[in-house]
Amino acid sequence: MTERKNIAVIGGDGIGPEVTREALKVLETVSPGAFNFHEYDLGAERWQRTGEVLPESVLEEIKGVDAIILGAVGAAPGSKSIPSGLLERGLLLKLRFELDHAVNLRPSRLYPGVPTPLAQHVVEGREIDFVVVREGTEGLYCGNGGAVRTGTPQELATEVSVNTAFGVERVVRDAYARAQRRRGKLTLLHKHNVLVNAGKLWNRVFTEVGAEFPDVETNYLHIDAAMIAMVVDPSQFDVIVTDNLFGDIVTDLAAAVTGGIGLAASANINPSGDYPSMFEPVHGSAPDIAGQGIADPTAAISSMALLLDHLGERELAARIDEAVATDIAERGSSRTSTTETGDRIAGRLA
Amino acid sequence: MTERKNIAVIGGDGIGPEVTREALKVLETVSPGAFNFHEYDLGAERWQRTGEVLPESVLEEIKGVDAIILGAVGAAPGSKSIPSGLLERGLLLKLRFELDHAVNLRPSRLYPGVPTPLAQHVVEGREIDFVVVREGTEGLYCGNGGAVRTGTPQELATEVSVNTAFGVERVVRDAYARAQRRRGKLTLLHKHNVLVNAGKLWNRVFTEVGAEFPDVETNYLHIDAAMIAMVVDPSQFDVIVTDNLFGDIVTDLAAAVTGGIGLAASANINPSGDYPSMFEPVHGSAPDIAGQGIADPTAAISSMALLLDHLGERELAARIDEAVATDIAERGSSRTSTTETGDRIAGRLA
Ligand SMILES: CC(C)[C@H](C(=O)O)[C@@H](O)C(=O)O
Ligand SMILES: CC(C)[C@H](C(=O)O)[C@@H](O)C(=O)O
Repeated sequence: MTERKNIAVIGGDGIGPEVTREALKVLETVSPGAFNFHEYDLGAERWQRTGEVLPESVLEEIKGVDAIILGAVGAAPGSKSIPSGLLERGLLLKLRFELDHAVNLRPSRLYPGVPTPLAQHVVEGREIDFVVVREGTEGLYCGNGGAVRTGTPQELATEVSVNTAFGVERVVRDAYARAQRRRGKLTLLHKHNVLVNAGKLWNRVFTEVGAEFPDVETNYLHIDAAMIAMVVDPSQFDVIVTDNLFGDIVTDLAAAVTGGIGLAASANINPSGDYPSMFEPVHGSAPDIAGQGIADPTAAISSMALLLDHLGERELAARIDEAVATDIAERGSSRTSTTETGDRIAGRLA
Repeated sequence: MTERKNIAVIGGDGIGPEVTREALKVLETVSPGAFNFHEYDLGAERWQRTGEVLPESVLEEIKGVDAIILGAVGAAPGSKSIPSGLLERGLLLKLRFELDHAVNLRPSRLYPGVPTPLAQHVVEGREIDFVVVREGTEGLYCGNGGAVRTGTPQELATEVSVNTAFGVERVVRDAYARAQRRRGKLTLLHKHNVLVNAGKLWNRVFTEVGAEFPDVETNYLHIDAAMIAMVVDPSQFDVIVTDNLFGDIVTDLAAAVTGGIGLAASANINPSGDYPSMFEPVHGSAPDIAGQGIADPTAAISSMALLLDHLGERELAARIDEAVATDIAERGSSRTSTTETGDRIAGRLA
């Protein structure tokens, strides 16, 4: 790379900082001196100490970097000290929305030798390698709900899913383009038989944009039917495009069937390039195993491949992917510590 | 039974009428002469012939019966002749809403010998036997959305999830009571870190009602995390309670991991008894295999056990469950025709 890129690093909560450390180790190994890292102390601890989630000045600073690396954000479910959703909405989703991360990219690939919860007859001899393009700035994630008579037997609470032609089109277009560069197949997931308003919009845009990609084969699945498809034959998928909430749900299932959430990387991409994109593992902060040094950093490391790819460093990205694949194949089902895994993958790249 | 009960029978679309025929065969076998069946010709064909989905007069008639048996409803996705969602919303959901089917009950059980897409190490030696209590009259299923500037690049489409303390409480209470009669464990599925308004309501009610059931152990999972749990260890579940859409999604996955949608029964229960409850397989109309006589009627047959149980005929219900379990174990992975399966199960009960 010609000039040092500035990278904001947000380790976050729980196992977030632990896996991020290994990701940075690998990134530094494949491209030494290419980056200036700026660590941001954000998350549960900062909130508990200062009451701050994401100060405006910090957000402004982050807007100016070239990319963001994020570990994981979120307190333990049921945690009494932090209101539910405060960190998720105030930090993680705030970044996705403020930085206009329209394309939430989540590749899933079942590497040979990786333990999967699926039966042999489902996976044997089939290539399972797909990517979910999840919309990242609309849907039920807008925080566009409310409640009246809270705490009473007459309470009414609503959540509003917001879908715009603008928002749907850019993510659908991105998905078609990816399908064209891959195996040429695109699946739309929705529930248009029930969510008829949003469904009509997604269907229309999917068809209209599709006219520009005549070589991409398309199909449609209701989100409930997709649950079945994902466990009885995930090899049928190439690229999946869907809304924010369905994307959240289907990508955890996708991660589970391809060897677990410990391996699933993701990119939150700003398609215009106006603001930095953000790279993070799909998994959460896993408070139950935090601090024990046993979290699998593979997903965080693979996210560095997505980061390098996004910055135009295709070859370096491919090298990380290869090292990860080899490591996964060689370690089999033996569990190693967070730093051991990071060291081993970095070692392969040194 | 003392007097003949009146049962409305709606075969519906696709494989609906085929599997319903076998269900009635079994019902007649275990309780000959106990029912008057009233067939209602509703679904895609009637709409195509007459433009009617569910005439008001028919709905009024149906309100007066003792129970409803439904096959399946819905045209093929992408069908040009029937607008998306017309039959689902005009017939199936209309019945659930008009008849106030608050409790949508969906048991899942992995019978010995049933082929599952899950690996041996996930299922071996574990009992997988749980029930999802899905809210049936609220959430995103209210049809409470809209769109402006449709068909233009400025289109905005919304969907509103409606949650009331009244609606949440009755389904949560039902779920606690069921957990108490089973293994004493209840799991709430939601996404309260993002859907904070609805999430707060569900959490509050879950906790408040829980105080009346101190012997029921509870836990909470985000819907995305539940996807993982369902494939890596479904034996952890006893009773699950969740909202309408999450329930739709998780029950298809639950059906898939416990041997497929061909086996999953369901009941739509009116908790006050003011209107008839409705019994139907979880699967859809499967237009791709309709008319071939190959649809598995087991789910429709198992739904008859739920119907008998609901009408207080516990013993007859148990007999059907037993016959189904035996048949599933004996047929193994061999596929038999729709009528053969029905005949065989009825034969066991004769
Ligand atoms: C932590 C949570 C808000 C987040 C989401 O729902 O998007 C996570 O589940 C994810 O998938 O990145
Ligand atoms: C057909 C459809 C409207 C229905 C639903 O979404 O509830 C079905 O998927 C179900 O689960 O019964």
